[in-house]
Amino acid sequence: MTEHTVRSFDDQLKHLKNLIVQMGSLAEAELEGAIAALTRRDTGLAQSIVGSDSHLDELEQEVANLAVRILALRQPMASDLREIVSALKISSDLERMGDYAANVAKRAIALSQLPAVKPAGSIPRMARLVQAIIKDVLDSYVERDPERAVDAWRRDEEVDEMYTSIFRELLTYMMEDARNISACTHLLFIAKNIERIGDHATNIAEIIHYLVLGRQIDRARPKGDTTSFAVVRPGEGAGGGSSSEAGG
Amino acid sequence: MTEHTVRSFDDQLKHLKNLIVQMGSLAEAELEGAIAALTRRDTGLAQSIVGSDSHLDELEQEVANLAVRILALRQPMASDLREIVSALKISSDLERMGDYAANVAKRAIALSQLPAVKPAGSIPRMARLVQAIIKDVLDSYVERDPERAVDAWRRDEEVDEMYTSIFRELLTYMMEDARNISACTHLLFIAKNIERIGDHATNIAEIIHYLVLGRQIDRARPKGDTTSFAVVRPGEGAGGGSSSEAGG
Repeated sequence: MTEHTVRSFDDQLKHLKNLIVQMGSLAEAELEGAIAALTRRDTGLAQSIVGSDSHLDELEQEVANLAVRILALRQPMASDLREIVSALKISSDLERMGDYAANVAKRAIALSQLPAVKPAGSIPRMARLVQAIIKDVLDSYVERDPERAVDAWRRDEEVDEMYTSIFRELLTYMMEDARNISACTHLLFIAKNIERIGDHATNIAEIIHYLVLGRQIDRARPKGDTTSFAVVRPGEGAGGGSSSEAGG
Repeated sequence: MTEHTVRSFDDQLKHLKNLIVQMGSLAEAELEGAIAALTRRDTGLAQSIVGSDSHLDELEQEVANLAVRILALRQPMASDLREIVSALKISSDLERMGDYAANVAKRAIALSQLPAVKPAGSIPRMARLVQAIIKDVLDSYVERDPERAVDAWRRDEEVDEMYTSIFRELLTYMMEDARNISACTHLLFIAKNIERIGDHATNIAEIIHYLVLGRQIDRARPKGDTTSFAVVRPGEGAGGGSSSEAGG
């Protein structure tokens, strides 16, 4: 407490921002590690990812404690207040991203016990795209660059489209051979987890836009994932089902 | 603005709490409606659930705006500050619960176009349990009753166990007949969505405990969902797979 009351207000805000950046790097690294564990069938790496996720939870708690301390001691106004409330919201998104990455790692452990299935190859590509989005979102936070946040936000549509394509591919594999079902089910949830990590990165982009400019992003949120409406039947194949989508 | 500066501090806090209760009732009703749409194959009801979810988003924004306004104008200390930060966190959980319920409704629309599958029957039972937990969590929020929050928090383990059993049942159905795969995949995600709604209710229980008592719930969080580690093979059946679980 003494340390913090001595610290200047600017130092406290800087510390808050640093915590967010640290959480962001951890979430990004967790996703990268989980995907590496998946592709290399590396159970040890997967286990270490699962174990390290609690660090993100602790950092989220640290952000909340620091935010409350600043609010109580400094009674900040206007843009500083926005800074603090944004940090609270961003930290909750980042913590959730870590949860999803840890779940990918858990499923990588299960998958290492099952025969490899082909569609697994599309997942790292999707994950790379999401990692690039996370990186841009974090950079836009550091540089207070709302344009960069909007760019990253826009690319979430691409993630959703990749997810939709992976979803159909996986369903086709499951229909072709019942022995693929267990592995493909894990891959379905892995793809969904990555898609959700992308959603959270998009949330953060929206928060940054609001933080810097004081207003919401004005376009409707892009939504390319239509799989919740998908009706896929055996024999339809992965490519030919656009007519059986009921729309986003 | 004038209206709010005129309002007393207590009135503002009361209004904040009311917004949370309102969001909680909406989230609960959304889940109930989505499950009714699923069991009755009622596309119209499902569509109205999907459409009404934006109301929760608006209320979350209203909570954030009001919280920032109170923080800026009143500079609250200690327990009042905890009240406001808790409201911010709870509103984010409730908004997410609504998202998951809306996704259940979307999938109910897809399922109404597919032949009915038997495991659909276990899902309403799981949803009823989650609804009961949500109700208790909301009551514990209104009554500032941390014991009731802990009770609700504990029952999340039961939800996870039901989810695990539904997961295995669905996989078995998929393996038996490829024509079940599309419907069962939607049911898998529906079950997962309901399980996540339960997780968010558990989060809220933790926040309430902290809000009222100023400290975390001291037991480790119950975790009965081991499906991320599940390895199910054709012919194993729904009941006999405990040996192929790698633990929570």
